[in-house]
Amino acid sequence: MSESGTTSEQYLRLIEGELEESLLLIAGSPLKEGIKYVFSMGGKRVRPLVTVFAAESVGKVSGDVLHAAAAIEILHNFTLVHDDIMDNADTRRGKVTVHVRSGVNTAILVGDQMMALAYDCLEKCSGDHLREGLRVFNEGVKQVCDGQALDESLSKTNGSGMSDYIDMISKKTGALLKAAAELGGVVGGGSRTEVESLGTFGLNLGIAFQILDDLLDLEGDADRFGKPKGLDIIEKKKSFLFLKAQESLDRSRVAVVNAAYSKATVAEQDVEAVRNAYREGGIFDAAREEVSRYTETALSGLASLRESRGKDALTNLANSLVQRKF
Amino acid sequence: MSESGTTSEQYLRLIEGELEESLLLIAGSPLKEGIKYVFSMGGKRVRPLVTVFAAESVGKVSGDVLHAAAAIEILHNFTLVHDDIMDNADTRRGKVTVHVRSGVNTAILVGDQMMALAYDCLEKCSGDHLREGLRVFNEGVKQVCDGQALDESLSKTNGSGMSDYIDMISKKTGALLKAAAELGGVVGGGSRTEVESLGTFGLNLGIAFQILDDLLDLEGDADRFGKPKGLDIIEKKKSFLFLKAQESLDRSRVAVVNAAYSKATVAEQDVEAVRNAYREGGIFDAAREEVSRYTETALSGLASLRESRGKDALTNLANSLVQRKF
Repeated sequence: MSESGTTSEQYLRLIEGELEESLLLIAGSPLKEGIKYVFSMGGKRVRPLVTVFAAESVGKVSGDVLHAAAAIEILHNFTLVHDDIMDNADTRRGKVTVHVRSGVNTAILVGDQMMALAYDCLEKCSGDHLREGLRVFNEGVKQVCDGQALDESLSKTNGSGMSDYIDMISKKTGALLKAAAELGGVVGGGSRTEVESLGTFGLNLGIAFQILDDLLDLEGDADRFGKPKGLDIIEKKKSFLFLKAQESLDRSRVAVVNAAYSKATVAEQDVEAVRNAYREGGIFDAAREEVSRYTETALSGLASLRESRGKDALTNLANSLVQRKF
Repeated sequence: MSESGTTSEQYLRLIEGELEESLLLIAGSPLKEGIKYVFSMGGKRVRPLVTVFAAESVGKVSGDVLHAAAAIEILHNFTLVHDDIMDNADTRRGKVTVHVRSGVNTAILVGDQMMALAYDCLEKCSGDHLREGLRVFNEGVKQVCDGQALDESLSKTNGSGMSDYIDMISKKTGALLKAAAELGGVVGGGSRTEVESLGTFGLNLGIAFQILDDLLDLEGDADRFGKPKGLDIIEKKKSFLFLKAQESLDRSRVAVVNAAYSKATVAEQDVEAVRNAYREGGIFDAAREEVSRYTETALSGLASLRESRGKDALTNLANSLVQRKF
């Protein structure tokens, strides 16, 4: 397979094909139907695209790259299935979550089986790439688990601040994009320096992505995103906005935020009051600045790579992600 | 490291050391303490011993073998953590289960992180062994997940019979011992035929082990086993005994069994009635015969291997497992 002239749409089709093909590896499994359902829930397939483009930026897109891209997407989907159980989420992307559809026990097993399936895809990679790919991938899995654990504990502890939050999202969201980019670098045959540069790109893009996600909780388009506005406030999440507010809002505006967060049930007018305090106190602007700052750091990771279609594609992907409105 | 003269106790110490060392791979993880707790819950470490002895039966016990043995034990423990959530089990080996101790969410994550840790241990294996080891290991993980899923669905469906049960335990219990033995064969440098023979050993030993477990639910020593007698009846499990009873008990005795299984709450005298029906109807004897039959098939797997300390150790291990009284 040559990378020349392959469009994102064509890569997306190849990735879907690879996911479909992975199901053959669990042909007789009673959990296959559940995993197929997870695949059918869709998503933008950002992470496997990062893997493919990263490989293209340092070498070429071989069969190994598609195996690795599928492994990354399956890993991501596994984390969603288990996270949805933990977060008690009923829907995702407008569809019912696996544990609502099939029960918590089956959802735990669907996730576990997806993890094994991800490693199965990875195992298809040729000898040169297998060990280093596995190392990068495992590091991603471990950090993602840590990130989710930190998220759990931060939500229960008072007094956690911005640095705890950045550490948490670096792991929960950053580590998977980092692994996606590094894995692409490894299977694309990149040098150690190139793989590291790609890691910088992925990690910081992930952080930018998560801060934007927190921002769009209040600013985005409810219909497209499929969840009500201000959900983080309703659920009293210690989001970037909340923590930034604690740091930099004046006393009267912080009081508004904390009053809402201390209510047993947060009403619509509370959300509105917090939104106004954030807006007027410059929290939205601060969030946008942080998104830009992390995106720039991400792109600076690419600076040392030679010019290539893959590098352009990663740059475009990063820019389009942080310009999203939903 | 030479295998000559190393005793089981010495191997057990090496395995514990390897487990301890694996924690360094997640040194900063918020989940490390939970995993350490799981390791401290103990257990007989049968599976990693099988890996070590299997390696010894075809070659030698190198560092790779200990990495693989640790991976197998961590995989086994991961399945216990998630199974305990699914089975709503409060204790295991006399200690509180992880989800009771730290909540379901943390227990899900501890399990997930253990799976990543198992692959981390495996990744330490040298080049020659990595891919084949990974293949064997993944196959084990997938089958174990399938086995647990089948167990879930069998418990909810009527009309499942002995063949469904054997399929289920082949995966739920057999596959892990199969993987343990095969992985030992692979990292010990065994031939394809030797690895297959070891697989036959592990699979059938696992089936024997599970049938014995079902038998000891009624026959064993409650204190040592740490759970009340007849728990399978109280929980209306479709155990080997129950399914064999459906096949071969006379009508009046089946009626006794089914009467107990149809009660909202199974009382002590119901357990006693079922136990008598099983005993008098020859179900216990039939179970013992099946245990012997599968154990013999397991040992026949070893027949083609050359004489060695490892082979002797596997034989002894199998015999001691199926002679256990608790």
